[in-house]
Amino acid sequence: MRWANQQSRTKRSIAPAALASTCGIIGAGTIIAASIVYWGPVAHAEAPPAEEKKFIRLDEVKQHGKSADRKWVIKGTRVFDITDWIAAHPGGPVIIRAVGGSIDPYWDIFSIHQNPDVYDILEDYFIGDIDPRDLVNGAVGSDNIEDPFVNDPPRDSSLIQHTEKPCNAETPTSLLDTFITPNEVFYVRNHLWVPEVEGTTHTLTVELPDGNEKEYTLAELKSKFAPFHITATLQCSGNRRKHMSAGARHAAGLQWDIGAISNAKWTGVRLRDVLRDAGVDVDARYLEDAKHVQFVGAEAYGASIPIDKALQARGDVMLAYEMNGRALPRDHGYPLRVLVPGHTAARSVKWLEKIILSEEESQSQWQQRDYKCFGPNQTGKDLDWSSAPAIQETPVQSAMTSIKEVSPGSFDASRELQKPGLTEDAVQVAGYALSGGGREIIRVDISADGGSTWQQAVLLPDEAEGQQSWSWKRWHAIVSRPVVGSEMVVKAIDDGYNTQPESYVGQYNFRGNLTTAWHRVRYPFSEDRPTDQS
Amino acid sequence: MRWANQQSRTKRSIAPAALASTCGIIGAGTIIAASIVYWGPVAHAEAPPAEEKKFIRLDEVKQHGKSADRKWVIKGTRVFDITDWIAAHPGGPVIIRAVGGSIDPYWDIFSIHQNPDVYDILEDYFIGDIDPRDLVNGAVGSDNIEDPFVNDPPRDSSLIQHTEKPCNAETPTSLLDTFITPNEVFYVRNHLWVPEVEGTTHTLTVELPDGNEKEYTLAELKSKFAPFHITATLQCSGNRRKHMSAGARHAAGLQWDIGAISNAKWTGVRLRDVLRDAGVDVDARYLEDAKHVQFVGAEAYGASIPIDKALQARGDVMLAYEMNGRALPRDHGYPLRVLVPGHTAARSVKWLEKIILSEEESQSQWQQRDYKCFGPNQTGKDLDWSSAPAIQETPVQSAMTSIKEVSPGSFDASRELQKPGLTEDAVQVAGYALSGGGREIIRVDISADGGSTWQQAVLLPDEAEGQQSWSWKRWHAIVSRPVVGSEMVVKAIDDGYNTQPESYVGQYNFRGNLTTAWHRVRYPFSEDRPTDQS
Repeated sequence: MRWANQQSRTKRSIAPAALASTCGIIGAGTIIAASIVYWGPVAHAEAPPAEEKKFIRLDEVKQHGKSADRKWVIKGTRVFDITDWIAAHPGGPVIIRAVGGSIDPYWDIFSIHQNPDVYDILEDYFIGDIDPRDLVNGAVGSDNIEDPFVNDPPRDSSLIQHTEKPCNAETPTSLLDTFITPNEVFYVRNHLWVPEVEGTTHTLTVELPDGNEKEYTLAELKSKFAPFHITATLQCSGNRRKHMSAGARHAAGLQWDIGAISNAKWTGVRLRDVLRDAGVDVDARYLEDAKHVQFVGAEAYGASIPIDKALQARGDVMLAYEMNGRALPRDHGYPLRVLVPGHTAARSVKWLEKIILSEEESQSQWQQRDYKCFGPNQTGKDLDWSSAPAIQETPVQSAMTSIKEVSPGSFDASRELQKPGLTEDAVQVAGYALSGGGREIIRVDISADGGSTWQQAVLLPDEAEGQQSWSWKRWHAIVSRPVVGSEMVVKAIDDGYNTQPESYVGQYNFRGNLTTAWHRVRYPFSEDRPTDQS
Repeated sequence: MRWANQQSRTKRSIAPAALASTCGIIGAGTIIAASIVYWGPVAHAEAPPAEEKKFIRLDEVKQHGKSADRKWVIKGTRVFDITDWIAAHPGGPVIIRAVGGSIDPYWDIFSIHQNPDVYDILEDYFIGDIDPRDLVNGAVGSDNIEDPFVNDPPRDSSLIQHTEKPCNAETPTSLLDTFITPNEVFYVRNHLWVPEVEGTTHTLTVELPDGNEKEYTLAELKSKFAPFHITATLQCSGNRRKHMSAGARHAAGLQWDIGAISNAKWTGVRLRDVLRDAGVDVDARYLEDAKHVQFVGAEAYGASIPIDKALQARGDVMLAYEMNGRALPRDHGYPLRVLVPGHTAARSVKWLEKIILSEEESQSQWQQRDYKCFGPNQTGKDLDWSSAPAIQETPVQSAMTSIKEVSPGSFDASRELQKPGLTEDAVQVAGYALSGGGREIIRVDISADGGSTWQQAVLLPDEAEGQQSWSWKRWHAIVSRPVVGSEMVVKAIDDGYNTQPESYVGQYNFRGNLTTAWHRVRYPFSEDRPTDQS
């Protein structure tokens, strides 16, 4: 009754599979915010009628997997027949991964399940307990719990791993010093496991507002549409969160340093072209029932972008299949991903399986909750998540990736770049700067004395491709040794003359997203120097 | 020889009138930066051959005005026959306004003339001195010097005038508190005099890259193209310059408070539609020889915007003839002006006479010099003006327009808006916030204690029209009296999550453009309270 009720509240009557996909993995995101609306005020789960305890053998559970008529899962040591729930699961068909075994590893990945209402739902499907003969120390043995990450690819050992499952690994500062980041050391930000997708048979489905679908195999995408290239930087919304935690107060999430960012040359086809082919009037000034383009990944991740960005002739939104001249690595979306240049990386959905034109944004937690910023005073407690928009275009950012002493005799290339005319010892500072929305970096200011005096860095020439500025700008500066105080600072300015805020305190947000306050590094390096400078 | 040399350096051989227009009023802007290039190293003016001093009567000068074959001007007490120079004047045909009289008032308006090279040029055309019988105390009497501003319109007495000639007048804070600013008190930022343009016969010329021209009378524009409306805020790049001067160090230019900004509903036709009609392929992804759209005003002002902004379907660039439902007032461009929403107001050229599609930006001083920002350390001395781009889209801005005590019994409308649930005395703060490039304001943070703690203001609903966010957002906040410290602060955030910098020191630029640091007002008001709060 409860889930039937939920189903009836969806706007249109559609097939279960379509419902699940439309909801994205975390319509679940909606559960917490709107649980009362969806289920009504449920005081407690109804306990199953009192009867003799029923025990089920593990082997029997395993027979109720994907291909069975009735699909069972284990939660802890209890067994549930969720067959009738699957179609209504707000998280979509990903739940099928768990059937025939334990749902616990998945339950833990999706924090949305840490809610009494979700437990209540499951209770309705209870059918028995695991037979004590199959328990090890009172629990299902780990041999019998599938690891969702078992098929994740190997990673380069130089990446700095924050978490292994899912893989969250940043590019070390020493490898951030080139315009193009090699594939192997491009930062990895996975929200879930890496799905195994077959390139040769992979099919992309485009769902139009009228419910019609059009399918394209990867081979068809390549043969039917003109390929193009862009260089584009991807940056995690959490890049530099560590600095906000240190400079203001703790911000929840992975404590990324300056390496949740990388730049690559991408090859693919235009989303605009594909949508036109699928029947969308891409030149219309206004589309009644298509305000957002949702992307669904094969692992269950989902996100969306506004239709305008998708249709803009100069938007360069790409369905990408190559990265730096090679097929996408598995960690970066093999065989097909979205590349939304100028937007936060969370919208560039990997392992792209489905595109949905909709009146609504993706209902995933990554659209509705995780990637938003609130005021310095706002916290997750009693927060109206809908009061802030999902992060799309990103603000100006910059960071120093190297600081080193140079002597007059060894300026070489730097001298050519800057002609500083220095005869005394000096310090060379280098780094990256970028802005969102295709806005170009026009100036980088460097201070060697904590922000009292400034000089301009030299913006290095590059081979950026694309109709707008989608790549970071590399810069260098030579600072005369005598003017070096105790702290190096960098701030950048884009062509809308947006600049970075001065301190973390003013831009603090409890999720630590879009940390862009002036990057400061104590210099000369002291014992407690930040780990990002070595 | 000298000016012939200059002429030969222009890219195409074109008629003198076209040359003058192409240069805009201040190709003159180029003279200072590139005088050596244009004229070669001129050590000193060549003195006229020694001969008996020749005196000329004032009446004779007056006969050498606009319609005379030979055109003379007086500079100080000396007379010059500039007939042969007019076609090469980098400032364009505006120079003709001065012939038959004194050139001094114009010379003073265009600061570009304060350069020895410019005097040198004039010396070549010296023909004699004013007869001492026509001098009053050794100078030409003021009766005989025309006032270029004599035909400027009357202005509302509530405007706060910074300069009268040209008129630079801001909207008083007390009148900034409505979504739409009435025409009479809309801030005025004139660079020159207000030209007298006849609405019924006014003609707009569109010059295409191939040199072809197309003309439209105002009546034709109105009948041939679909009218549309937008509400759009215009803001002078110098708005709040006074705050930067006070908060960092003196910034050159008019010391505007928070009122060099106003909002109106505009009616006109799409520039995109007019350009299409004139023969431009407005849907082309790339136009070889049209990178910029230059606008020339009837008084001699000129500026340009990038072609992309002009051609964007969602750019809403308008040729406007109505402001708040009435014909444009003379101070605001009667009968026709450009409205470039989302860009700094300096690009919304008034008294529009000519549009030029060009490979180059406008060469006016207002494009090449005045409206740019440089680093905190950079000054006009030895500055490479070309190292910074002309301001187009503007960064996030906000200001408080009123602060007043309210008691629990009188919340009324504000209570409805915010439902703050306060029972104690409180302070109501209100103001504006806006961003450039069509980016919407998504949040306004208020601090009543100098930035230590924050709360969110309520963004007021409005009737903004346009395809993107072109209008300021009005906001209100109710602050509990007990949390009021000694300083109120406001900062805003746009949908690209750009925010305002914290202090004036970091964003200081010697021209004081785009002053957007957090607006702070001492409160409770003290004796030395800023004049913008009363």
